[in-house]
Amino acid sequence: MPPADATTDKPAVKSGLAAFEEFHALPISEKIALLSRGRELYHCLFAEQFDRPLLDRLGRLCDHLRVLTKTKEGDDFVATVLSHRRAMLYFSQPSTRTFLSFQNACHILGMKTCEIRDPRTSSEMKGESFEDSIRTFASYTDIIIIRHFENNFAEHAARVLHGTPRVVPIVNAGAGTFQHPTQALLDVYTMNRCLEGGIEGTTLMLVGDLKRGRTVRSLALMMRHYRDVRILLVSPPEFRMRPDILDALRAAGVFYEETSDFAGALSEADTVYMTRVQDEHDAAGESRAVNVAGFVLRPEHLRRIKPKAIILHPLPRRGEIDPAVDLDPRAAYWRQERNGLWTRAALIAMIFGAEKALLARIT
Amino acid sequence: MPPADATTDKPAVKSGLAAFEEFHALPISEKIALLSRGRELYHCLFAEQFDRPLLDRLGRLCDHLRVLTKTKEGDDFVATVLSHRRAMLYFSQPSTRTFLSFQNACHILGMKTCEIRDPRTSSEMKGESFEDSIRTFASYTDIIIIRHFENNFAEHAARVLHGTPRVVPIVNAGAGTFQHPTQALLDVYTMNRCLEGGIEGTTLMLVGDLKRGRTVRSLALMMRHYRDVRILLVSPPEFRMRPDILDALRAAGVFYEETSDFAGALSEADTVYMTRVQDEHDAAGESRAVNVAGFVLRPEHLRRIKPKAIILHPLPRRGEIDPAVDLDPRAAYWRQERNGLWTRAALIAMIFGAEKALLARIT
Amino acid sequence: MPPADATTDKPAVKSGLAAFEEFHALPISEKIALLSRGRELYHCLFAEQFDRPLLDRLGRLCDHLRVLTKTKEGDDFVATVLSHRRAMLYFSQPSTRTFLSFQNACHILGMKTCEIRDPRTSSEMKGESFEDSIRTFASYTDIIIIRHFENNFAEHAARVLHGTPRVVPIVNAGAGTFQHPTQALLDVYTMNRCLEGGIEGTTLMLVGDLKRGRTVRSLALMMRHYRDVRILLVSPPEFRMRPDILDALRAAGVFYEETSDFAGALSEADTVYMTRVQDEHDAAGESRAVNVAGFVLRPEHLRRIKPKAIILHPLPRRGEIDPAVDLDPRAAYWRQERNGLWTRAALIAMIFGAEKALLARIT
Repeated sequence: MPPADATTDKPAVKSGLAAFEEFHALPISEKIALLSRGRELYHCLFAEQFDRPLLDRLGRLCDHLRVLTKTKEGDDFVATVLSHRRAMLYFSQPSTRTFLSFQNACHILGMKTCEIRDPRTSSEMKGESFEDSIRTFASYTDIIIIRHFENNFAEHAARVLHGTPRVVPIVNAGAGTFQHPTQALLDVYTMNRCLEGGIEGTTLMLVGDLKRGRTVRSLALMMRHYRDVRILLVSPPEFRMRPDILDALRAAGVFYEETSDFAGALSEADTVYMTRVQDEHDAAGESRAVNVAGFVLRPEHLRRIKPKAIILHPLPRRGEIDPAVDLDPRAAYWRQERNGLWTRAALIAMIFGAEKALLARIT
Repeated sequence: MPPADATTDKPAVKSGLAAFEEFHALPISEKIALLSRGRELYHCLFAEQFDRPLLDRLGRLCDHLRVLTKTKEGDDFVATVLSHRRAMLYFSQPSTRTFLSFQNACHILGMKTCEIRDPRTSSEMKGESFEDSIRTFASYTDIIIIRHFENNFAEHAARVLHGTPRVVPIVNAGAGTFQHPTQALLDVYTMNRCLEGGIEGTTLMLVGDLKRGRTVRSLALMMRHYRDVRILLVSPPEFRMRPDILDALRAAGVFYEETSDFAGALSEADTVYMTRVQDEHDAAGESRAVNVAGFVLRPEHLRRIKPKAIILHPLPRRGEIDPAVDLDPRAAYWRQERNGLWTRAALIAMIFGAEKALLARIT
Repeated sequence: MPPADATTDKPAVKSGLAAFEEFHALPISEKIALLSRGRELYHCLFAEQFDRPLLDRLGRLCDHLRVLTKTKEGDDFVATVLSHRRAMLYFSQPSTRTFLSFQNACHILGMKTCEIRDPRTSSEMKGESFEDSIRTFASYTDIIIIRHFENNFAEHAARVLHGTPRVVPIVNAGAGTFQHPTQALLDVYTMNRCLEGGIEGTTLMLVGDLKRGRTVRSLALMMRHYRDVRILLVSPPEFRMRPDILDALRAAGVFYEETSDFAGALSEADTVYMTRVQDEHDAAGESRAVNVAGFVLRPEHLRRIKPKAIILHPLPRRGEIDPAVDLDPRAAYWRQERNGLWTRAALIAMIFGAEKALLARIT
């Protein structure tokens, strides 16, 4: 077949859903290569994009940003680096924390932001295709940060732009029940910072709705880059981790164990990672039938936990951690939350190639 | 009657609707003079405000802004020019594109923005008059950008402020079925940029719901400033251009022709300007009874269109242009959309008298 | 009892509502001391926090900001002072004016802002406790500005943060039917600026729904710092000022008089302060049964008012002031509204210790 001529009736590139489904079916390593645009980091879509050197560099940049922003001079300097960039925050799924931390991360870097949080104020969009909306965001801004209830929305957005003359980076800020890579980045950063000696050789206990918790899925994948990590998967039978992640752990030689024995696992863990039931993904309230009473962290559990362990939670919490636990020095979820600010700032800085300029500034 | 004393019971100035209706009934040239405040451009309300020299200057400023913002240094310079100005975006009608392009245009110029997009978050306003709301916006900001479903809302807002000590410029970002002058500005800019030799002597084909499409109405009026333009008005009988615009074209000696023959007109056009059905203005779904199937641009039409013609659309589109057409090099609607950013930035810069400062900066 | 160890099961600090209720029951002077963090002004929660020296300093800073921002150079300077600070605007009650004036005040000071105005876009919060939401805002930003329909929400937020390692200032931007201290600050500033010789020795007439108008409650309390002020409380019997404020006035030796005679009081007042019916606090539309027809300011009243008096209104108005009154030079409510911008900017600058840096800049 001769190369298709754009002025004929048969376009060379499949448009719309068909083209995406073909792309989506590729192995993830091929997708990453296709989407990388010859850089180390362009779109941020999957936990799988981050290898150990990249995670280490992100951590260093985070540390540097924290120190720089301790003074007004440092803060004002950081805000010059990307002052010429504008971000679009497209959050079609309700969000407080991820939205605010991305927006403030942009502001720390001096970027301007615009947002669509409420579909009704842009109902003009209802009549237009997803592809057209994404191209429109790319017309006006330099990066698009997306949260969506569909698993493949961000990936699809990146694919759409690659067929156009104006490509901007897409950041996945939470995709359905699939992945939440930036949450995993901040979790990794927090573990490395708070665990003596870092992640290697430690035991990570993941608790709760492991089936639909996109956060724990992304985090488990990242554990493959750290030696001798053990993962304890603690959930009611209905909320067990799905096989795709278990397969990936097994293939990477990561030890994991599935159990419903919450209290028993507690004493083995270096990181106790609690999560809530993801009932927003229920089809018909089926979560209510699951007994999660045995997966709640209460003050009486604290004596079981190792003295140097840390307790994490991606937040928001509902009943999974009794607020009285907050007073325990091992409770690190509020520091973890604040780390989201630095991690996301570091990530965006890296996407725009500003890592060097930031590190060059002596604090 | 002696001049009324403000402390007596009979105010000199009619307040509210009565005063506005008297003003509104004036010929447009008188209204423009009254609202101009002795400047070339203050409020931006009507397509009629723009003569050829002003359009040419706007185009030059657009070009200059595009070049300046290609580098970080240029971008940072542009953001200093209006860093002391704050804009209010009051969009009571759903909008994605116009809202985002105005907001990002402000950000390019270093302006701060605030917004009301969702009437419910400001329902405090429900109890207050339109006049009081506009005065409030003027109290806090330096320019008010308005989209509203009422035809005369922006004009009314300008009139209200002229009776007060604090007047700020009003920009009409889309008014009912009446006008959308900034869309016409970006359309003119795109045509001048993409058509070899510019607009003069070309044929503009306007397709779709010409009756209620405020965009095509404003654009048609601007064609009066370009010599030897022919306009082909292509629509179903129900959606024909209203007589006010036809009268204005006739008075200015612009050739136009009304037809329903979409395919026939295509081969004559230099600019094929497609639009969607404006069914948000339906009283009772009457648009559904109109057969628009014959006014859709499909790949099979492309061979009919001149090789150097351009295809435009104000977007969002629904079915009017098959996405496969996007791949044709004559499809210019995405470039047109992005031009909205520069055109609106140039317009605001001109309103605030920043044209000179921007042009003085050598790129 | 030995000091509680945070790693035991019994936390030393009561968490949640119980702890707050204990705190809330303290006398206001003790609360202010506990919340002050050793500074003159940290949280801004109650009208009672402002003594005469502080009010005078705020007024001076306001005046200085007004002058500084008359030029681009001054404006650009002011925007450097807090360029490293980020504000959270949490407005769970509909608001236009207070929201916009706080946001623009932040922008004047060079601060970045983020906002939650629509609870639905953050419905993730529904499942989480109030305490957790506040801590989250504090994680990402440097000050939290709150409007809420609950009387004690802002105070509660401040109390929550004091039990955590990251405390940021809380500003009460309107709390239920209780207080609205920043409105009172701008009212005081406006009175001092517009009344010849300032507030001392003048008569303040408060008109309308004095029972639930948080604005007039806060303003009345501030009058205690000015010598020889007389307060005329003019309302229908159903809307009389509540006893807590009357007690506070009596204890401070402020003369007040309650009356329903609107026309009679007008001729005695130096400041005529009109307010609307606060029917958003109705349980079942009970406001409709109250006859407020006699508490409306109309052009025919103007001849009764002293020639150098001023007319104020916190806005929005509904029917309380006929728009024809706007033309009277004594109508100062639009200037009052705009003063909100400067007052809030001055307040925030003072909270962040930027008063000196601003005053040091010669205009």
